[in-house]
Amino acid sequence: MSGTKEYIIEVASRVVHLRGFNHTSIGEILKESGVGKGNFYYYFRSKEELGYAIIENNFKRFSEEVTEKAFRDDRDAVAQLDDFLNILLDMHRTRNCAGGCRLGNMAMEMSDIHEGFRKKFQEVFDDLGIQVTNALRKAQADGQLADHVDLPALAQFIIASVEGAILLAKVRKDISILERCFEELKKHIWIYVNSSTPLRV
Amino acid sequence: MSGTKEYIIEVASRVVHLRGFNHTSIGEILKESGVGKGNFYYYFRSKEELGYAIIENNFKRFSEEVTEKAFRDDRDAVAQLDDFLNILLDMHRTRNCAGGCRLGNMAMEMSDIHEGFRKKFQEVFDDLGIQVTNALRKAQADGQLADHVDLPALAQFIIASVEGAILLAKVRKDISILERCFEELKKHIWIYVNSSTPLRV
Repeated sequence: MSGTKEYIIEVASRVVHLRGFNHTSIGEILKESGVGKGNFYYYFRSKEELGYAIIENNFKRFSEEVTEKAFRDDRDAVAQLDDFLNILLDMHRTRNCAGGCRLGNMAMEMSDIHEGFRKKFQEVFDDLGIQVTNALRKAQADGQLADHVDLPALAQFIIASVEGAILLAKVRKDISILERCFEELKKHIWIYVNSSTPLRV
Repeated sequence: MSGTKEYIIEVASRVVHLRGFNHTSIGEILKESGVGKGNFYYYFRSKEELGYAIIENNFKRFSEEVTEKAFRDDRDAVAQLDDFLNILLDMHRTRNCAGGCRLGNMAMEMSDIHEGFRKKFQEVFDDLGIQVTNALRKAQADGQLADHVDLPALAQFIIASVEGAILLAKVRKDISILERCFEELKKHIWIYVNSSTPLRV
């Protein structure tokens, strides 16, 4: 990807994150980035095309900053899940709970009014669901989680609770909401822990 | 409240729910409602004032449709919590998971860019938190929940998980996400159940 294209996507992601996709015009992105109109349309045929690039960019960033760090194969599965929550906690603490989840924000804004974006967000959340499910599956294979657990359902619940907690923390600007919700989530995973195995969550 | 004012708020709530607050102009609300500009400004000095009225209206509707039905004093506390989740489930099933949570959507959109709205949403979610906490407190007083439970933290977690599950169901347009997340939530409440008491959640 060219530097200019990447730069436009980065600026647009930031502006859209703050103002929402619909409330951001191409004119504002041009102004904010200092990129000319001709240059913009060389890379993006439309605001819609830019929208898809923003979603992909946000998921790429989330993967780099959160899931690739948390779900590393060299750690045991429970440490991975723990890391996943702790990385998110640190991220939102650093930001003073501003911003919320870039993916969640835009998914909430756009999923009812743009079917293409909705499908893209479905892919993104499915991908995240698979990553969390895989960590849970590893814990199950290691005998830490009970065999009967519906792993995709548990993964979905973890992601839902994380998204909701990030929203409430954003409303309250209070990191203790995330801290306490994540403690509850860790207790929740405990429901499924084989009583004979030690689990550090 | 006059009929016209109420009507404007209803129409505006619906339009804002679909398009977002920032993406909705007063002109569009006038067009959608058929109300004249002079009439609008007789009731609302600004779009901001309308925004506050929309938040209050959405919470009033949520209270009427969900919490006042669920948290009735004549039911036992666990049935109340069960009703709370079941009413939400029916609501989103009826809507085919479109729309998400009116309060959550606007809170997500506005909490970082309008401090007054953020405070209003904080009040609203605090109020909801108190209602859920009270139901949990009743369960505790009845000996169903263990004495040591941090009730506000558990209530917060319930609300966060509900908000996140509504978002994921909206993205996927799939009610089974809510069904499965709410099953997990019910299991979660079980963590705190006194083993000696029957709890129907």
